[in-house]
Amino acid sequence: MDASNRKGAAMQKDITAVSFEDFIAMEPLQKAPYLMQSDGMPFNTLFAQQFERPLLERLCGLATAIRRISKTREGALFLASLLAHKRAMLYFSQPSSRTFLSHLSACEILGMRTGSVRDAATSSELKGESKEDSVRTFSSYFDLIIMRSPSKGLAERMAWVLGNSERPVPIINAGSGKDQHPTQALLDIYTLHRSFETQGGIDGKTVVFVGDLLRGRTVRSLSWLLTRFTDVRQVFVAPDELQIGGDILDLLRERGVTFEVSSDLRRWLPEADAIYMTRIQDEWDRAAGESARIDTSHFKLGDREAAVMKPTAAILHPLPRRDEIATSLDNDPRAKYWRQMRNGMWIRAALIAATFGCAEAIDRYYAANVRR
Amino acid sequence: MDASNRKGAAMQKDITAVSFEDFIAMEPLQKAPYLMQSDGMPFNTLFAQQFERPLLERLCGLATAIRRISKTREGALFLASLLAHKRAMLYFSQPSSRTFLSHLSACEILGMRTGSVRDAATSSELKGESKEDSVRTFSSYFDLIIMRSPSKGLAERMAWVLGNSERPVPIINAGSGKDQHPTQALLDIYTLHRSFETQGGIDGKTVVFVGDLLRGRTVRSLSWLLTRFTDVRQVFVAPDELQIGGDILDLLRERGVTFEVSSDLRRWLPEADAIYMTRIQDEWDRAAGESARIDTSHFKLGDREAAVMKPTAAILHPLPRRDEIATSLDNDPRAKYWRQMRNGMWIRAALIAATFGCAEAIDRYYAANVRR
Amino acid sequence: MDASNRKGAAMQKDITAVSFEDFIAMEPLQKAPYLMQSDGMPFNTLFAQQFERPLLERLCGLATAIRRISKTREGALFLASLLAHKRAMLYFSQPSSRTFLSHLSACEILGMRTGSVRDAATSSELKGESKEDSVRTFSSYFDLIIMRSPSKGLAERMAWVLGNSERPVPIINAGSGKDQHPTQALLDIYTLHRSFETQGGIDGKTVVFVGDLLRGRTVRSLSWLLTRFTDVRQVFVAPDELQIGGDILDLLRERGVTFEVSSDLRRWLPEADAIYMTRIQDEWDRAAGESARIDTSHFKLGDREAAVMKPTAAILHPLPRRDEIATSLDNDPRAKYWRQMRNGMWIRAALIAATFGCAEAIDRYYAANVRR
Repeated sequence: MDASNRKGAAMQKDITAVSFEDFIAMEPLQKAPYLMQSDGMPFNTLFAQQFERPLLERLCGLATAIRRISKTREGALFLASLLAHKRAMLYFSQPSSRTFLSHLSACEILGMRTGSVRDAATSSELKGESKEDSVRTFSSYFDLIIMRSPSKGLAERMAWVLGNSERPVPIINAGSGKDQHPTQALLDIYTLHRSFETQGGIDGKTVVFVGDLLRGRTVRSLSWLLTRFTDVRQVFVAPDELQIGGDILDLLRERGVTFEVSSDLRRWLPEADAIYMTRIQDEWDRAAGESARIDTSHFKLGDREAAVMKPTAAILHPLPRRDEIATSLDNDPRAKYWRQMRNGMWIRAALIAATFGCAEAIDRYYAANVRR
Repeated sequence: MDASNRKGAAMQKDITAVSFEDFIAMEPLQKAPYLMQSDGMPFNTLFAQQFERPLLERLCGLATAIRRISKTREGALFLASLLAHKRAMLYFSQPSSRTFLSHLSACEILGMRTGSVRDAATSSELKGESKEDSVRTFSSYFDLIIMRSPSKGLAERMAWVLGNSERPVPIINAGSGKDQHPTQALLDIYTLHRSFETQGGIDGKTVVFVGDLLRGRTVRSLSWLLTRFTDVRQVFVAPDELQIGGDILDLLRERGVTFEVSSDLRRWLPEADAIYMTRIQDEWDRAAGESARIDTSHFKLGDREAAVMKPTAAILHPLPRRDEIATSLDNDPRAKYWRQMRNGMWIRAALIAATFGCAEAIDRYYAANVRR
Repeated sequence: MDASNRKGAAMQKDITAVSFEDFIAMEPLQKAPYLMQSDGMPFNTLFAQQFERPLLERLCGLATAIRRISKTREGALFLASLLAHKRAMLYFSQPSSRTFLSHLSACEILGMRTGSVRDAATSSELKGESKEDSVRTFSSYFDLIIMRSPSKGLAERMAWVLGNSERPVPIINAGSGKDQHPTQALLDIYTLHRSFETQGGIDGKTVVFVGDLLRGRTVRSLSWLLTRFTDVRQVFVAPDELQIGGDILDLLRERGVTFEVSSDLRRWLPEADAIYMTRIQDEWDRAAGESARIDTSHFKLGDREAAVMKPTAAILHPLPRRDEIATSLDNDPRAKYWRQMRNGMWIRAALIAATFGCAEAIDRYYAANVRR
């Protein structure tokens, strides 16, 4: 089971031993060993399913170490020395300032230099070039590709193409199609991890998802990752038209996870350890105004709702928000959504550091200089 | 009067002690102490009025030190070490390549890493997010926000919002609405400071503003800042339709400043120590072609005009220009407008250095290595 | 013949001694000494013709040194220290992600910080500013200008303008109009140089150009540069409508170069040491669909064509490609087009290093640490 990229990291399974068609046809859990290094760290980060619990905990620990190390000038300069010899390309053919800047910041914290493509249509595509050729060209200049694309599966196709080229380069999927956004799931887990740090961790908690559960890929990914923990109860609160997909519920059943499906937010507020609010994703409407016909007025969080929540509860939101959470809650200590943004930067820095084999150097610095 | 940001610099007045509505309603001079650090350096730079004369002179001195230090490789590397542990976000929802690159360069000179948003419409705004949420999100990744926005007052609103958050971050206003562009005013002052270095400084000089004085925010800000100096005579030369606003003249009267209003450029050329040329800002026309109906032919500088100017006069222009200044004057030693661009970079570097407490380190290096 | 920029490098000929009109009217070979430093290194890189054979070989050697030095962390950090005190501006008013990222990477490898303008229309142009003013303004912030523009001759005009200003800054032309793209020619030469490293070099080889030879500026520049080598036979294979221009053939005749003009690809495949494939450049069509009426089906490379090529042949393509080369050839060892992309980064880094006088420092490091 030991295999190497032609020039590069030793991998759990050798992607050059599998054909393109066979690779693409695999289930995520089957693909995972082709994406993971022998030491258990990711090489390519394509979907949430490749992160098992020990890795999730390792990354959360690393993110906290990076966050705390960065508080001093000396610490920040140490971190910026780690990957000062590497460069990253951010290929965002589906624009998102927030996700772009978060990944960019993660790279900068580790001292990487960066280049970026942020246009929906690059000039090369206008000249008839395939997306695969574009990404392969850009990858030839850089040591890491962070890509976001409306094109379903592009990150997976590129992982195979580059893995079979002379110069494999790790890929981080920063959102592809409607489905996968693994680093968002990581940041949500890290936010829960931090929120429950003094409450025994994520195990045994009740997480209530609220809003557009049908079309929000963040909910789907986080729901999946929570199955990696013990006794987490998942509650899905949404208007019927926007309720979570049956495939997720099937998965939860299969994995023996307790869950509830409801349209009554008030019923679940007092029991929630975490509330995960989401926005109506009307950009995915199949007909104009489709979402506008749905009554979402009972799926919002204001002062009245906050009043019946536990004093220890955590309020999350992947942002951007519209009016799902009243701005009057922004300075409530239970509101974690601003910190959640910043957590995204830390966990992405942890992921990149782990990908390039810097985890132990960070551990050592942390033990010697920060943790007492 | 001593107050601290929740985590951060000690401020002259505590912005968490004033409501949003009360803060926004204040006059600039009232707001200033909420923006300034206890040591007299700016935390947020929002408008020209917060700069008093000693601070203007301090920043001009710092800008010159940075400029001269940067001439050697060792000096440039010293400067780039100062803020190598800090990162800046340039949020330019109103594009301007010139102002963007000038601020970017200032950050780079000090070793800051940067991220940027340069689109008029970010994807988040398309998803219904408020501007305040966008900026607050982006600020969570960075240590400094440099923002330019067509939205009047956004920088001030963000100063209050971030000042009342867990993580206050300094803001530099790189242009907001029609009104404020404080770093442009600083660079104009610095250019006059350099131009008159061997002529006794800015005090006592005659500054002639020419062109579209009604709609040019640079003229308004510079006129204001010149009142911080002694015996500066201000002359406003424009077609009647584009003459300076009465509010500025009221202010000059109130502060006892000598001024003249004229439509005769030839009359004032021989007396000018500095000529500040401006472009017709027809992008602000309320009706198409409005500006085109105004005769501006007598408000241009060519060889004939230059011939009657003092040999020591300084010609400034905030650029971009159209035909207000003939290109034949570009290499005239009195033409300071190219140097003015570069001065903008130096004074912005000085401002950022001062904001982050690096002024004294620069003084020490300058005294030891450059100044003799 | 020895002359200096006002502040800067000593040049072969003094550009301030020639008028703008006279300079622009010169032939490339006449202009060259105004662009080259006394030590034989380029100051401005405007066209392929300014590179003579010794300089081409020097740059290829430097590119290989940089490439090999960069393989270790220590080497990469050495390279990144070389120009850590310099900053580059990438002004791409004609967008090209591939060329942009390649130049950006070259700058980053040498430790330069960068700023960029990547819009077709900058806001300043909307405000009526001339391109010359825009570039001169932006140049005032940076130490190097890398520019790509649809405007024929802009880079040459700027070389004169900046050379006659207070602050000359080197310019690298990254593509202007239909004609010049000198760094593309350099990367093609470097790719041939590497491909024939163990076959006695470029001299004596047969290079077959295929496709749209009329409108591809890369072919024209490479054809020119190949005349700097000895006994290189050039073969131009294209449909009649897209055959190479008569001006190039005249030049080859004048320089005594052996060439062939053909429309029969199969005839030349077995003799080719290098095949240079190109895309139909239908963006230059004078009437919509003009190119579509041309039968290009016989000017493509697939498995059947590859089968009759020499085992040592090199397949090049400037990319982007459409279907001129079948993807089934992508992992053929003769396919050099992906490596060609990466070669572009190395030769551009070599060019920038040479421009700023770093060539000898690189030689010393290479001799001491890499070459044995």
